[in-house]
Amino acid sequence: MAFTYLTNVPLEQAKKDYLRVLAEQGFSARTERIRVQDAFGRITAKAVYAHINAPHYACSAMDGIALFAKDSFGATETTPVTLREGQFTVVDTGDPIPEGCDAVIMVEEIVRNEDGSVTIHAPAAPWQHIRQIGEDVCAGEMILPGLMEITPAAIGAMIAGGVLEVEVLAKPVVGIIPTGDEIVPPCSDPKPGDIMEFNSSIFSAMLSSWGAEARTYPIVPDRYDEIRGMLEKAVSECDLVILNAGSSAGRDDYSATAVREVGEVLYHGIAIKPGKPAILGYQGAVPILGVPGYPVSGIIVIDELLRPLVDLWYRREPDSGSRTRATLTRPVVSGLKYQEYVRVRMGYVGDRLMASPLPRGSGVVSSFMKADGMVEVPQGTEGYNAGEEIRVRLLTGKQRLKNTLVIIGSHDPLLDELADLIHREDRRYFLSSAHVGSMGGIMAVRRGEAHAAGIHLLDTETGEYNRAYIRKYFPHGGVYLIRCVGRQQGLMLQKGNPLGIRSFADIARDGVRYVNRQKGSGTRVLMDYLCKKHGVDPERIYGYEREELTHNSVAVQIAGDSADAGMGIYSTAKLYDLDFLPICVEEYDLLIPEKGWNSRMVRQLISTLKSEEFKTRIEAMGGYMLDRPGEIIDVF
Amino acid sequence: MAFTYLTNVPLEQAKKDYLRVLAEQGFSARTERIRVQDAFGRITAKAVYAHINAPHYACSAMDGIALFAKDSFGATETTPVTLREGQFTVVDTGDPIPEGCDAVIMVEEIVRNEDGSVTIHAPAAPWQHIRQIGEDVCAGEMILPGLMEITPAAIGAMIAGGVLEVEVLAKPVVGIIPTGDEIVPPCSDPKPGDIMEFNSSIFSAMLSSWGAEARTYPIVPDRYDEIRGMLEKAVSECDLVILNAGSSAGRDDYSATAVREVGEVLYHGIAIKPGKPAILGYQGAVPILGVPGYPVSGIIVIDELLRPLVDLWYRREPDSGSRTRATLTRPVVSGLKYQEYVRVRMGYVGDRLMASPLPRGSGVVSSFMKADGMVEVPQGTEGYNAGEEIRVRLLTGKQRLKNTLVIIGSHDPLLDELADLIHREDRRYFLSSAHVGSMGGIMAVRRGEAHAAGIHLLDTETGEYNRAYIRKYFPHGGVYLIRCVGRQQGLMLQKGNPLGIRSFADIARDGVRYVNRQKGSGTRVLMDYLCKKHGVDPERIYGYEREELTHNSVAVQIAGDSADAGMGIYSTAKLYDLDFLPICVEEYDLLIPEKGWNSRMVRQLISTLKSEEFKTRIEAMGGYMLDRPGEIIDVF
Repeated sequence: MAFTYLTNVPLEQAKKDYLRVLAEQGFSARTERIRVQDAFGRITAKAVYAHINAPHYACSAMDGIALFAKDSFGATETTPVTLREGQFTVVDTGDPIPEGCDAVIMVEEIVRNEDGSVTIHAPAAPWQHIRQIGEDVCAGEMILPGLMEITPAAIGAMIAGGVLEVEVLAKPVVGIIPTGDEIVPPCSDPKPGDIMEFNSSIFSAMLSSWGAEARTYPIVPDRYDEIRGMLEKAVSECDLVILNAGSSAGRDDYSATAVREVGEVLYHGIAIKPGKPAILGYQGAVPILGVPGYPVSGIIVIDELLRPLVDLWYRREPDSGSRTRATLTRPVVSGLKYQEYVRVRMGYVGDRLMASPLPRGSGVVSSFMKADGMVEVPQGTEGYNAGEEIRVRLLTGKQRLKNTLVIIGSHDPLLDELADLIHREDRRYFLSSAHVGSMGGIMAVRRGEAHAAGIHLLDTETGEYNRAYIRKYFPHGGVYLIRCVGRQQGLMLQKGNPLGIRSFADIARDGVRYVNRQKGSGTRVLMDYLCKKHGVDPERIYGYEREELTHNSVAVQIAGDSADAGMGIYSTAKLYDLDFLPICVEEYDLLIPEKGWNSRMVRQLISTLKSEEFKTRIEAMGGYMLDRPGEIIDVF
Repeated sequence: MAFTYLTNVPLEQAKKDYLRVLAEQGFSARTERIRVQDAFGRITAKAVYAHINAPHYACSAMDGIALFAKDSFGATETTPVTLREGQFTVVDTGDPIPEGCDAVIMVEEIVRNEDGSVTIHAPAAPWQHIRQIGEDVCAGEMILPGLMEITPAAIGAMIAGGVLEVEVLAKPVVGIIPTGDEIVPPCSDPKPGDIMEFNSSIFSAMLSSWGAEARTYPIVPDRYDEIRGMLEKAVSECDLVILNAGSSAGRDDYSATAVREVGEVLYHGIAIKPGKPAILGYQGAVPILGVPGYPVSGIIVIDELLRPLVDLWYRREPDSGSRTRATLTRPVVSGLKYQEYVRVRMGYVGDRLMASPLPRGSGVVSSFMKADGMVEVPQGTEGYNAGEEIRVRLLTGKQRLKNTLVIIGSHDPLLDELADLIHREDRRYFLSSAHVGSMGGIMAVRRGEAHAAGIHLLDTETGEYNRAYIRKYFPHGGVYLIRCVGRQQGLMLQKGNPLGIRSFADIARDGVRYVNRQKGSGTRVLMDYLCKKHGVDPERIYGYEREELTHNSVAVQIAGDSADAGMGIYSTAKLYDLDFLPICVEEYDLLIPEKGWNSRMVRQLISTLKSEEFKTRIEAMGGYMLDRPGEIIDVF
């Protein structure tokens, strides 16, 4: 195990130096000639001049007759003028003006006579209703300057001007080289240890949105010669190259060496997190960017370091995105050493824009999908407190955020179904849910951070659900408790129950691997109540401290044989084909602040809860009891 | 000539009825399954659920060793713990956690011993540095609701969840049928009477920007059976059909009949201008839109009537565009009978956003290319006055308008070259020029509507250029006169001078067709001065009242044998290979208000005028004298 020590250059400096060095190396756009019909959205490489006039001949602008204007002079309502055959020519719109004619009279303004002559009741002004040569475009005139985006109308103007091909900036071709012994192409049944190669698909989509074109090379195993060989090939074939994975300083990380051998390394190691082990290299005018293997790190490195190169190619101003201020719902702790990127979910609750940090794991690509914004914690800053107003770079439009229903609290898969139903009903509306447990939901509603919270909190004194907690945390009231579902809670067990678990107390037996839910979740409250009730000492449960945030994630540990038992709901056990030991039926309700009760989005939520489709879907999941969902249970 | 009388339905009613009828007919999106890698930007047809967990096995989140956490308990700096071979396994990031292990220690935190054991100085917490099964995505969980746009990260999340294909809304296929005997495919040398078919290229680009896909059919001549046959074919193959041209009620206009025979016509004739003769038809659930042949009419009809159908297909909110208020620089007169669309050029001069109406001819597609906004004059309104503040739908971003240098005044092709040079120098900056003649330029500067004006106004008393006019129209000063170019003025004549025109007075000879410039242009001032000087009676000049707005458009009438002579500059005569009878050299200067003198854009203009590249380009055009362009001649 040999270590390469990485630099820790601040991002801005690294970016500036990289762009400067590449400009010096002659990094700039290629151009290409393409058919004008295919040029929509492309950028002209240089000014485009018309080859011909449009129209290229004087033509009639109307259906009617062409004539020599002077022949019509003197015509009035009372002294009409009659033109005999030969003095006029019938013309349609677009027809050439016959020689000797210099005006057109509209068909509606003439009277045809039986002898073939026509009568008019007003004179024609010379040149009226004639489209002169070049009215639209004159040959030799500039249609578009260079470096302009080609619009639909510009396509029309070019063709009208006889320009059938146009020289445009070529889309930069970005080679992507995935590396790693464990990396396999996307498949539906990867083996343990296989890591599916989806980074190139993410990067390709990002690149295409910036006007670049990805060329993904076959996956290269962790063998130095092969990596170097593929890198040389890509550098000779592409305008930019991404070398993916293997850019950290661990075992088998040949990237930096390969880049150094093939070209130059400007920096290896940037003071950002995630993304630190990025390699900023180049060979001649071809940038070579070493990108960490974790998707989130990769996305950030490509956004911060490759996107500016595409902007430089197109000579356009970097799009620094739209920023806004928002209130942080939970603290963000950051190291002093790096600029740290924290993805946040956002939502308007009342007039306040709230930002909730998402999981920060670099492997969690789904967190990027859920992110509405990005908080950049600068280098040298320790982070932010909950409640602090911070600056966020928006990844989602503000209008969408205003139309997003924020539900924070206990996890249930029905929330996803609600999200689907609400958005299907009206594409303007979105539902964003965060799983922080029932207590987290109560707190979120109390702090005005959510439109609703899913809660199922057992009062162990009375056996009643939710009310005692609401009375305690909302002593002044101001909230509605809304009926959602009854659901079957119990122990999820491996298929066929190989360990023969027959009662709750069995989870403390030797050899049983338990997986728990996080503190503050309703299921954890139930779990701890059951331990007390059955006299089970948590210390004796292997895995009691192993916490997962959702029913699903507990279930998959069991289904994947990484655990034997965990508390959860019947629908989840059914989804993962697990055995299930029923324990109780609980009330899963929604807590909604009185203030937002009449908002459009809460109305939409209630009507969806009451819909037939909601009932059908939820009942199909199993283990739910639906009794008038959407009704008010109580007003506090 | 048989007339079909058209209806005159208000646009909003027509649109509402059309959408309602089509919804009733079952017009809705098809869906299709595509590879997830190709799904960027597409819309999910229904909710997408994960097939597998990601990660699908518990794996190491770090390079290091995997161990059973309890074996490390008690380790401290002073009482290290040594793990012998067999008690740990070396793991790389992503490696599966071996059976019996429940924690990972990072490689940086272990000491390797010669005997193969490792020493650690801190205990491992159970489950630390382990990515649990489903940390990113759990099998069975909803990854995306239905009707959601697929982002790069969503592509990653789907692949991670084992979803390799996704059902998305198909792009609606829009068949475009161009019709007309005179219509020919784009070519570089159309014959007189040929009209190039570029509408389908414009429409295709518009459609692609809305997420639809155009399928253009071969051009159909004006024969009823062929039009009907092609319409039937397109209706059977496409989701929507555009029948282009032939939708007015003139000769050879079979469209309405064909649509009526193939399907139904809801309306024929909408109260908009341009665009009135549109046909709103359908066959079953397939909309058939009859679109007028003029490109500008076609663009407006498609934008107003087809775009909402694409929005309905995607079940998205119609994008009504961004609107703003602006000051009209010239009056807009409109008929009471229609809602009229007027394209405008826009620019910020100081803090005021100005809107200048562009030519309204329906055939002038280049005017759409130049348009920054669209003014909709409602039905029943007579128009607006100059100086009135009106509402404009923006076609160009406000930021771009803020970066646009507005030059209004006399035409010279050098303005296009300046536009190209300024934008090449810095892609943020644009130059927009309007050709309204020198007097128009003076008035525009006086009213604060332009950053600069090109002027060449001869004081016939003194023979001096520009100063007398400035003193007259800016009695209180406040403007700078900037040196631009000297240019050769004269008579442009047909190649070889077939009519033997040897002096100015010859233009009044019988058989000479003259083409004039508009009143208020410097060239017209010169022309009228020359008439007086040479004793030529304008009444005697055939074509004196025939006005063109630019040197180029005068030249192309002569080159196209629609005129024999016209005043203009040498560079234009050279461009069109015309003969030239020199008359005088005039000063073409720039008038710049003192107030904007130090603005970024005027600075850019001046530095471009002084550049070597400007000099090289302008000299190559011929007939220009450059003497320190960009210098201040005088301050008023």
